[in-house]
Amino acid sequence: MRRFLIGQARKGLVDHTTRRQHHQTRSFLSLLPPSFSTNSPRAAPLVSLSRFMSSTSDMAASSDSTSSLPVTLDSINPKVLKCEYAVRGEIVNIAQKLQEDLKSNKDAYPFDEIIYCNIGNPQSLGQLPIRFFREVLALCDHSSLLDETETHGLFSTDSIDRAWKILDQIPGRATGAYSHSQGIKGLRDTIAAGIEARDGFPADPNDIFLTDGASPAVHMMMQLVLSSEKDGILCPIPQYPLYSASITLHGGSLVPYYLDEATGWGLEISDLKKQLEEARSKGITVRALVVINPGNPTGQVLAEENQRDIVNFCKQEGLVLLADEVYQENLYVPDKKFHSFKKFARSLGYGEKDMSLVSFQSVSKGYYGECGKRGGYMEVTGFTPDVREQIYKMASVNLCSNISGQILASLVMSPPKPGDDSYDSYMVERDGILSSMAKRAKTLEEALNNLEGVTCNRAEGAMYLFPRISLPQKAIEAAEAEKTAPDAFYCKRLLNATGVVVVPGSGFGQVPGTWHFRCTILPQEDKIPAIVDRLTAFHKSFMDEFRD
Amino acid sequence: MRRFLIGQARKGLVDHTTRRQHHQTRSFLSLLPPSFSTNSPRAAPLVSLSRFMSSTSDMAASSDSTSSLPVTLDSINPKVLKCEYAVRGEIVNIAQKLQEDLKSNKDAYPFDEIIYCNIGNPQSLGQLPIRFFREVLALCDHSSLLDETETHGLFSTDSIDRAWKILDQIPGRATGAYSHSQGIKGLRDTIAAGIEARDGFPADPNDIFLTDGASPAVHMMMQLVLSSEKDGILCPIPQYPLYSASITLHGGSLVPYYLDEATGWGLEISDLKKQLEEARSKGITVRALVVINPGNPTGQVLAEENQRDIVNFCKQEGLVLLADEVYQENLYVPDKKFHSFKKFARSLGYGEKDMSLVSFQSVSKGYYGECGKRGGYMEVTGFTPDVREQIYKMASVNLCSNISGQILASLVMSPPKPGDDSYDSYMVERDGILSSMAKRAKTLEEALNNLEGVTCNRAEGAMYLFPRISLPQKAIEAAEAEKTAPDAFYCKRLLNATGVVVVPGSGFGQVPGTWHFRCTILPQEDKIPAIVDRLTAFHKSFMDEFRD
Repeated sequence: MRRFLIGQARKGLVDHTTRRQHHQTRSFLSLLPPSFSTNSPRAAPLVSLSRFMSSTSDMAASSDSTSSLPVTLDSINPKVLKCEYAVRGEIVNIAQKLQEDLKSNKDAYPFDEIIYCNIGNPQSLGQLPIRFFREVLALCDHSSLLDETETHGLFSTDSIDRAWKILDQIPGRATGAYSHSQGIKGLRDTIAAGIEARDGFPADPNDIFLTDGASPAVHMMMQLVLSSEKDGILCPIPQYPLYSASITLHGGSLVPYYLDEATGWGLEISDLKKQLEEARSKGITVRALVVINPGNPTGQVLAEENQRDIVNFCKQEGLVLLADEVYQENLYVPDKKFHSFKKFARSLGYGEKDMSLVSFQSVSKGYYGECGKRGGYMEVTGFTPDVREQIYKMASVNLCSNISGQILASLVMSPPKPGDDSYDSYMVERDGILSSMAKRAKTLEEALNNLEGVTCNRAEGAMYLFPRISLPQKAIEAAEAEKTAPDAFYCKRLLNATGVVVVPGSGFGQVPGTWHFRCTILPQEDKIPAIVDRLTAFHKSFMDEFRD
Repeated sequence: MRRFLIGQARKGLVDHTTRRQHHQTRSFLSLLPPSFSTNSPRAAPLVSLSRFMSSTSDMAASSDSTSSLPVTLDSINPKVLKCEYAVRGEIVNIAQKLQEDLKSNKDAYPFDEIIYCNIGNPQSLGQLPIRFFREVLALCDHSSLLDETETHGLFSTDSIDRAWKILDQIPGRATGAYSHSQGIKGLRDTIAAGIEARDGFPADPNDIFLTDGASPAVHMMMQLVLSSEKDGILCPIPQYPLYSASITLHGGSLVPYYLDEATGWGLEISDLKKQLEEARSKGITVRALVVINPGNPTGQVLAEENQRDIVNFCKQEGLVLLADEVYQENLYVPDKKFHSFKKFARSLGYGEKDMSLVSFQSVSKGYYGECGKRGGYMEVTGFTPDVREQIYKMASVNLCSNISGQILASLVMSPPKPGDDSYDSYMVERDGILSSMAKRAKTLEEALNNLEGVTCNRAEGAMYLFPRISLPQKAIEAAEAEKTAPDAFYCKRLLNATGVVVVPGSGFGQVPGTWHFRCTILPQEDKIPAIVDRLTAFHKSFMDEFRD
């Protein structure tokens, strides 16, 4: 009976129809190999949600009954249609549906819970927030607490001091007011000081734009530099799909460069040059280069020499360097350190007048993992005043980012210091999280490398492993029969057998003919052994089923 | 001496150069009369910030010294260049500079402080947040407070109960986790219940998309329906410039319809039809109609019959009705009530299958005015499942809106009820703010109507007055000599003489040859008499200087 129900669930959930293919003008995807393109007959339609989004009760899905509605797939912006975002795509929707079913049908599945390893969302998996940060936020939210004597018993003295300091930096102490479009000046001062301390080079608070997480900052820069599909962005493959999504939404062309799996996801300048020249020969003006360091989904930390070469390359080729540095606190190996690209640019003697460089940072990552707060900033350097004016105007159209997120962005760049009341407990929390993440990364990496046909580079940083799976030909054929990318086929099977949610490599891009998935290292330590066991058992049974 | 300094300040601050004119492809502005277009030689360059944005010290502004930088005004996205956003435009930047100067040069100006009446930002002008809302936010931010006995002395019992209820609605009680892309389901349930109670018609939590304020929601809908300049949006003139800005950024055409000042900013269906037909005759497919009710910048509340006509018009013409209803709590006259467009659509018998309707709401407005929290939602009804899937995907690319803003959006739709511990004090706060706003609106409206050549419709709702000023020909000529729109010329003179910041009507659009400004009703009551005095004295002296 149980097997029958699983079979049914699989059938209902895994089976799906391909999304309508739309006539599209020349797409950035044409620059990518077929295995990356979602227009390829092999590839999975990564977002196909309609069956899992409850629609209003009286709405019928048939086109007849909704024929009087004005908006159709044929009339909407084709860039929206084209955009894909795998980390919240089809597999996650299947998982949400399974989770819902689990509540009433506990015995129908061979697992008790869904474990979301699809997204870097640490607190959703039980990581606790850093207490000092939350104390300051609560005091700023409800500042009349600062006038109460009981508050001194409930909050650390440095959180009280910090809250006062922050409130004094906010005009009128009004935490409920729109701020300056770039964010509260005093908080930007704190962030700039944090960057200076990190890099050993000056940082200007007027270069900081506080944003609701890093995503809106990336969108803003893409919107600025992309005018048409003739404008390209050099982007790593594999990449975090925010980049492909925002390039698509803003109508530009993604120009891929490949990270080399064999050398631990290294970046070859010769490959960058080749891709740049190829794009130029197709009439594409490449505007910027995206680098993600530490890497997402690949988890590598770039070598210092490599970073210098990238800076020189951007300088020589006249490219904006868009540096995704949101994992700057997430390093797990003693032989690697985080260095910002700005530090290398300045140490090579490139100043404001020499090259354009944007660094993205977020409160969602690091050891704090405050994803729900939507805080972040970009440091924008090396743009002429007239172009900067345009960036300022874009920020102004959305008024400002949320003030709690702004405050938190200042806190992560200026945490408690030795001697502060919170310092000892803060360090215990911080180091506990980071050392546990390192341990979890290692355990999962080893487990993956023990699986037949699986190889996995070490996670030097970030929050992910990106193992490569050699899929048997029979599995590839079975996937094709289901009109699914082979790695998506594997991930769906994994989900249905274990409740573990990972994202197929095809959502990030990969060398044609190779297959991967991205798995976060974020489940709490006590869950890891069970995950390893379930993964190992699943993989064996999958291989037994499909081995050539 | 003082006069000399004022003269200097004026010269340095008011004088400016026009922004570089760029070759632009056919623009939505071509549909607008010259007085609205910022490309017109008459019009003010509304955003010209470079002189007021400190740039990094070693960056020189000359093109020579920055010639090696890759990004120039000629290479960036022309839609960004074209976009204007007056409420944070040039006048505000002059004001910020004056405010900075005031600190060291107190005697240089005939005023002690800058009073920002340019933007609906109540807490920046001294309005206090609603205590219950902030108590709940603080408890959710730092939930371990809920385990402490002292908390019961510091917080109301209903804020504690509400915080528990909300935490229980958040998976794993993780307020620091990314939520569902549409927002936390339990909070959407609360909001849907609030909409049902307001309208008397069902609301579905799956139709709610929580957003960081209303602005990103507006952008999302514009991005969905606009593919090219052949797609148009019917938009009121005067309008809130978020609409013109987002239509420009997403490459569509703004199709203006005029609100009739003579009938209290009424909306004539015959004018809507005329504009729609004219746009269609130019080959533009009009996709949606924007209505702002209560009106911004115009402050009117639409008549019920008018709302029904608008609903019928959208239904008949196949337009998406984009209803900006963010001022739904801000009504100041006993003869008008707020009714949502959805309520009228449903009462006319139009359901999910009949018409597409989006309602925008924000925590920034109302009596709460929590602008800095960036909370809001859109209720999306009447879209086919496949189109809804695309909206969901767009929301997913930015992961989710900030959780504090989400919580606040649920609170404003479900405030304390009779019998709750906070109820009495909450009602005192709420009614105090709303009745004071009504009083301030009345006082300012009367003062404006007492000025020579000024007429001002009553503020029935929202947070603004939009007086019309008959400028003497000499003033218009003086403005032309300064290459400034006449109303911008007036507003800059007003700022320099009084420290009061208002926004020229040309930033919102107006009938050609008429001049207005938008002034919020938000300065605290004790400031109003001084504002009236300064405004009256300035206006008299301005008219004396320029009277024909």
